[in-house]
Amino acid sequence: MARRRLVYEGKAKILYEGPEPETLIQYFKDDATAFNAEKKDVIEGKGVLNNRLSEYFMSGLNSIGVPTHFIKRLNMREQLIRAVEIIPLEVVVRNVAAGSLAKRLGMEEGTALPRPIVEFYYKDDALGDPLVTEEHIIAFGWASQQDMDDMVALALRVNDFMSGIMLAVGIRLVDFKIEIGRVFDGDFQRLIVADEISPDSCRLWDIESGEKLDKDVFRRDLGSLTDAYTEVARRLGVLPRTGAGQAGPKLVH
Amino acid sequence: MARRRLVYEGKAKILYEGPEPETLIQYFKDDATAFNAEKKDVIEGKGVLNNRLSEYFMSGLNSIGVPTHFIKRLNMREQLIRAVEIIPLEVVVRNVAAGSLAKRLGMEEGTALPRPIVEFYYKDDALGDPLVTEEHIIAFGWASQQDMDDMVALALRVNDFMSGIMLAVGIRLVDFKIEIGRVFDGDFQRLIVADEISPDSCRLWDIESGEKLDKDVFRRDLGSLTDAYTEVARRLGVLPRTGAGQAGPKLVH
Repeated sequence: MARRRLVYEGKAKILYEGPEPETLIQYFKDDATAFNAEKKDVIEGKGVLNNRLSEYFMSGLNSIGVPTHFIKRLNMREQLIRAVEIIPLEVVVRNVAAGSLAKRLGMEEGTALPRPIVEFYYKDDALGDPLVTEEHIIAFGWASQQDMDDMVALALRVNDFMSGIMLAVGIRLVDFKIEIGRVFDGDFQRLIVADEISPDSCRLWDIESGEKLDKDVFRRDLGSLTDAYTEVARRLGVLPRTGAGQAGPKLVH
Repeated sequence: MARRRLVYEGKAKILYEGPEPETLIQYFKDDATAFNAEKKDVIEGKGVLNNRLSEYFMSGLNSIGVPTHFIKRLNMREQLIRAVEIIPLEVVVRNVAAGSLAKRLGMEEGTALPRPIVEFYYKDDALGDPLVTEEHIIAFGWASQQDMDDMVALALRVNDFMSGIMLAVGIRLVDFKIEIGRVFDGDFQRLIVADEISPDSCRLWDIESGEKLDKDVFRRDLGSLTDAYTEVARRLGVLPRTGAGQAGPKLVH
């Protein structure tokens, strides 16, 4: 492969210059981090699984008219994406109390929420990605009121779609995080889903057993992260049935 | 005074049954607490000053048509108020970055905000009064969307009025907290300002010197809290000019 210009390296992915203007190549690393990178490890095969799974979810969203940055998968670890101007917010949708919401509001993990709750966290590692409100977002110009409305609408459509996918394979979509970016068409701006959608960015619980099939397996030392992600991929039919090297052992049910 | 039924005792105030239905007597204690009551002290005369100052601010608000619970002051430490159903949120308006906002968003204290920011904190000592968003408030039923709109409107009117008062006596209104309650008139509900407005619930900085004239003097051990509150009362003409026992020494400027 020819030498490419590195555009950005994050904790789990690298962005390279793409083959056409307004495109990038997104490379999925095997690095796993949690608690604002205080906990780190390399999980062999995670990047391959997340590349596949993000392709699956994003191409599905494209197909129902929820615009995403995904163009096509290039190889085991890379996909071609649209370049966007990332809005510096993590958009979280929650269906069930877990993680920081459960802690913040003193709720038991697993409590169904009365309705999906959309939250925004300001993307700043040094500050620990703090929860912010519409007031902060608009006062500091991170997004406009129109952007906010569009982001909530996008996030709720992603929630509906992802909830459906997961329900169909016996998984409860507890919550997830997306990032959203701006693309420009002349004078017009449009918001599209960017970054990735994978078990790194969702909470996924087996409906029958309650078993966690997401990054909490890593955060909380609950077993093999590769096994968990492979199980999600297997249920979705994303992995070839015949022994792919990265698939790892199957979970027994 | 005849024995009265105690309705509620908080950290800085006590509520007793009032003389008429739908009224209460609010008693101002000298107790000062900070950091979720981890820091405590008794500041002689604080209750007297806050009773006077809350009377001053609330009766001013009543006079411009911003409804409050204040009816009349009864004596040095007590005022007659309307009973309300308190909404379990602290409503904070900020004009300048300070305290938890500065920390949360990594801003230097004293940075002017691009516009006033209204925040809501869920009143729960055990959880440390966490910041919450509209989504949490509405999903958990602490207030309706209409309530939220009304609360923001009330809070911004209080901010305008209090900013004016303070500017007139050389003080910058950095931020303040109010609580809001519901009163009912037949089938109708109205929201009114409740609790107290005092240097316990505001950040007040001398415009020229930057000197703090509010509870941060206690939180951060910056000197005499009584001196600071007395200075605010003196500038507002709330204290009699002739030596009231509670007034304490005047600050030198």
